[in-house]
Formats: sequence, structure tokens, C-alpha cells
Amino acid sequence: MSTSKEPAGTSVLTKPSDREIRVERIFNAPRERVWRAYTDPKLVAQWWGRGNKVVIERMEVERGGHWRFVEHADDGVHGFEGRIREVTPPSRIVQTFEYDGMPGYVAVTTATFEDLGDGRTKVVTTSLFHTAEERDGMLNSGMEVGMNQSYAALDKLLATRAL
Amino acid sequence: MSTSKEPAGTSVLTKPSDREIRVERIFNAPRERVWRAYTDPKLVAQWWGRGNKVVIERMEVERGGHWRFVEHADDGVHGFEGRIREVTPPSRIVQTFEYDGMPGYVAVTTATFEDLGDGRTKVVTTSLFHTAEERDGMLNSGMEVGMNQSYAALDKLLATRAL
Repeated sequence: MSTSKEPAGTSVLTKPSDREIRVERIFNAPRERVWRAYTDPKLVAQWWGRGNKVVIERMEVERGGHWRFVEHADDGVHGFEGRIREVTPPSRIVQTFEYDGMPGYVAVTTATFEDLGDGRTKVVTTSLFHTAEERDGMLNSGMEVGMNQSYAALDKLLATRAL
Repeated sequence: MSTSKEPAGTSVLTKPSDREIRVERIFNAPRERVWRAYTDPKLVAQWWGRGNKVVIERMEVERGGHWRFVEHADDGVHGFEGRIREVTPPSRIVQTFEYDGMPGYVAVTTATFEDLGDGRTKVVTTSLFHTAEERDGMLNSGMEVGMNQSYAALDKLLATRAL
């Protein structure tokens, strides 16, 4: 089931069950750098908001740690938060995800980081919702567009020397 | 489907699906008092910990509000937290529930408060987990014993004049 032939820069979104969303994305950077971009607050602030300012209020990358990001967008301020279930650098992090606009609706997101052996990294993110309706609500919220904007910003960040 | 013939003081636990736990409990007190005992931090601190000290660090009873309780037990300090999804006083509150010992494992709990018309109140609490394994883990954690101890403490509190 090798997917290393997939081009970098293209997200593949699938629905493994009626309560899940799975996204595969390859980045043109070694795993250590991609891991840092996902877990270092200073770096997260540079791509997560798709060009919008993101205030990283809390980001405790450890089991039981809390995270909270606030995005300042044209249409207002949007808070997101959750908690780390488990973290195994640089290959796996499991955390919850909750949007202030839908408080109490919590997805569990598992992200794995695979070293493709050619300087590229495959990130697979699977989100599990409590109900199919919550999953569909997320899909219908414009999540895929926003996600791809974030990934494009991450591509740019990974291409800089700064990281 | 009247259950008003059930005796107060007895919890009825059922499993409506493989990811749910449902508990029915009747209290010998009017709905307004039971609601206050569930939502006033000063009162919650008097029954939630089953006789153990409980520090109510946060309890914002409104949509999007956070709650966090810390129980000081003989075997250590146990934190619990979550967020309010919706609240309709005095009849319904939906919130998430997460134990520090299992961070990132989040149940959604819906509690309804039914006025039985005879000075008693039926509370039905349904918890939905992300997986059947998480539901079973909760059942195997001694949850039912602890819950019944809390409810017994609540019975006592509701019987006092102070409330």
C-alpha cells in the first residue's frame, strides 16, 4: 500500500467510516522538520491560520497537555482547543479538537508522520467524531478548503531556510 | 413510559447502544432544588466528591463554558473537566466529561431533569463515548460505585434545609 508515488502538495480526503475523516498529505521536507512545524508554537503560528494571525494561547505538547489557538480572521475571532491524548515524537500525536463555535463537539484526531525515505514526509490525519452528523457538519463547514490553505502555508514555511 | 413508580434512591443503569451508558435516578426533591444542586458550584462541592474534598476550579454554566473539578481522595488528586454544549435551566444540560487520568478521552453527557409532579425529580443521564472500548473502560473503572456514592451524598444534601 505504498503511496510514496503520490505528488507532494495534494491532499487525499477519504471517509473510512461514517464517523471519520482521513486526510493524507505529502510534504517536501524531512520528518523532523515537519514534526517541528506541527509542534513548535512559534512555527504553528506561521501556517495554521492560512495567513491569518493566530495567537497560540496554550500548547503543551505532552500527554494530558492542553492546547488553545485563536485565529483572527476577517469575519471575526475563532478559538480552537483540545487536549493531548498521546504524543510520540516525531511520528505520532493524538489529540482532541473543539471549535468555540460548536462547544462540546469534540473530535479525536490522530496524526502520523511517515518518513518516505527520500526527504519527504507523509502525514496522515484521521479524525473520529461522536456521531455521523458531527462528521458531516465538519465536512460541510468548509473544512477542506481551510485545511488546504493551511497545508499550502505549511509548504511555504517548510521551503524556507528559517525552519 | 411513566417511571414515577420507581423508588427514589435507586439508580437504573442501562446500555442503549455499545457506545452509551444511561442512568436513571429519582430524587426526593423538587426540580428547582435538584437543578441548583447540579449547577451551583458551592452545592456541587458538597456532593460530587462522595465525601472527598472537591475544588471547583472552574464552572461556567453557559454554552461554551468550561468546568474543572479537582477531587482530593485518599489515593491522590483527581482532576475532571469539560465544556458545556448546551444548557436549558432547569431541565437539560449537555456537556463533555474528561478525566485527567485518561486525557483526550471525551464523553458527551446529556442530563435531563423531569418534574414528576409529586415533589420528586427524575434525572436521566446519558453518556456517549467515541468507541465501545472507551464506554467499557468507564464501566470497568468503578464508575457505578462512585456515582452511587455521589448520588447518596446528593440525597443527603437535598434533605437539608440549607439548600
